[in-house]
Amino acid sequence: MQVHKAVITAAAPNQNTLPLQQLVDRNGETKTALQLIVEETLAAGIDEICVVIQPGDQEAYEQAAGAQLANLQFVEQPEPLGYADAIYRAKSFVASEPFLHLVGDHLYLSSSEIPCAKQLIKIANEFECSVSAVQSTRENKLPYFGIVSGPHLPRRDDLYEIEAVVEKPTPTYAEQELVTPGLRAGHYLGFFGMHVLTADVMDLIEPLLTDRCCEKPALSDALAMLMTRQRYLAFQLQGSRYNLGVTYGLLIAQLAIGLSGRDRDRILTEMVELLAIRPEGSVAR
Amino acid sequence: MQVHKAVITAAAPNQNTLPLQQLVDRNGETKTALQLIVEETLAAGIDEICVVIQPGDQEAYEQAAGAQLANLQFVEQPEPLGYADAIYRAKSFVASEPFLHLVGDHLYLSSSEIPCAKQLIKIANEFECSVSAVQSTRENKLPYFGIVSGPHLPRRDDLYEIEAVVEKPTPTYAEQELVTPGLRAGHYLGFFGMHVLTADVMDLIEPLLTDRCCEKPALSDALAMLMTRQRYLAFQLQGSRYNLGVTYGLLIAQLAIGLSGRDRDRILTEMVELLAIRPEGSVAR
Repeated sequence: MQVHKAVITAAAPNQNTLPLQQLVDRNGETKTALQLIVEETLAAGIDEICVVIQPGDQEAYEQAAGAQLANLQFVEQPEPLGYADAIYRAKSFVASEPFLHLVGDHLYLSSSEIPCAKQLIKIANEFECSVSAVQSTRENKLPYFGIVSGPHLPRRDDLYEIEAVVEKPTPTYAEQELVTPGLRAGHYLGFFGMHVLTADVMDLIEPLLTDRCCEKPALSDALAMLMTRQRYLAFQLQGSRYNLGVTYGLLIAQLAIGLSGRDRDRILTEMVELLAIRPEGSVAR
Repeated sequence: MQVHKAVITAAAPNQNTLPLQQLVDRNGETKTALQLIVEETLAAGIDEICVVIQPGDQEAYEQAAGAQLANLQFVEQPEPLGYADAIYRAKSFVASEPFLHLVGDHLYLSSSEIPCAKQLIKIANEFECSVSAVQSTRENKLPYFGIVSGPHLPRRDDLYEIEAVVEKPTPTYAEQELVTPGLRAGHYLGFFGMHVLTADVMDLIEPLLTDRCCEKPALSDALAMLMTRQRYLAFQLQGSRYNLGVTYGLLIAQLAIGLSGRDRDRILTEMVELLAIRPEGSVAR
């Protein structure tokens, strides 16, 4: 299975300015978050990228893409109808091919030689099926994640056959239905924000959008159906995800990137200097 | 002298995206850099703000301004003709009144109860003349700053009568001509990026723009002339400046703001957690 296409969703309300934010990459070069996400996909062998955006955002995104614009296509999500609908906007682009999907408000940092998306695609190619990247997720973070569970593959402690997919389960439900053997107590397999999906997922999303016209289906809803029809794996890749959409998300992502790159010493020095400035008694604005 | 107007310059090439960047303020609220700069001026008693922008940037800036848009006017700098020209674009707005001027690529953090711009305006009101905020600047930073020198006012160790203004002097020149008594050896008074100027500065800029048609006059060039015609003071206010336009500038500004605010402990915790992640031998992209 060769994966050459990627879909990046960047249309969520209140999240669409995040890919435009500037950060400094591991090599000390200033880039937008969009450029970093695109680089992640290009490094994984992708050559066509579709970015799902809000109406009116194309110009800002084209500027944010810079030199990588040649690899990008844009498609609008006309109404904010949720995550599954956003993916569905890329149906024509995907056609009948498998695709890598990344969310536009997360950055990823590999802890190995191989970039995260490349690790994931390698698994998808090897097993020729849909694979979602997952990470061990503490119970208190359940409201933020799609959660999966299932048994290990034989002789693989980083790969699971998915047998359940639930979007933002309650702790009680997770404890009863979503325990994955081998994880620490109170931990579950949560989506990392990166998936390789077969084109069939589009056919599974479609009825969700027409039948539940008053809800906003999540991607997890379609993946729960995918699970029953095809082999669908979960892969614990070697890396960390950084959510830009939470308070201080950009700061933490930038610190993580900087501390893992060529300017680590410089950033450590800056941090120490700032910590040496004791805050005045009651520091006003 | 009442100062009710402010001019923010945000038209410099490669700097015009900086005011659009998101940061978290001391109270944990996500704002754009533009909003933070505007808040600085509003806190100082300003009610009319003119932002000098590149052609085509108004829409992005209006979005970045959010709720503060009502206080803002925009004027374009049609060609990138330098700093003095950018200020000159606000001539009609300024009319004959004194104005606060801030650069759009710096954020300021007061180390006292009083915001930086408010400290500066208080001095301008008290002495009824132009005042530029300055900070002690090490010799190795001279290429980045306008430098001033002059004697202390009697009984004030934070106020100086400006007798020389030079844009980015060489270390040799500074050592010979710009030593200000009372500063540490090898240190000079460098512009902080914040000024209160009388409207006369516009008349002083005009001939610079017409006479030197092949150069890009700096504001310092006009201020050197202002110095010979009116009282012109330099004020070492209580605060720090953060240049967003240098590599890691956003990171350092965000850390400084966060560590001085309500989420200091949380940020310290995040920093410690990130430092505990030891980088792998050769961490690749």
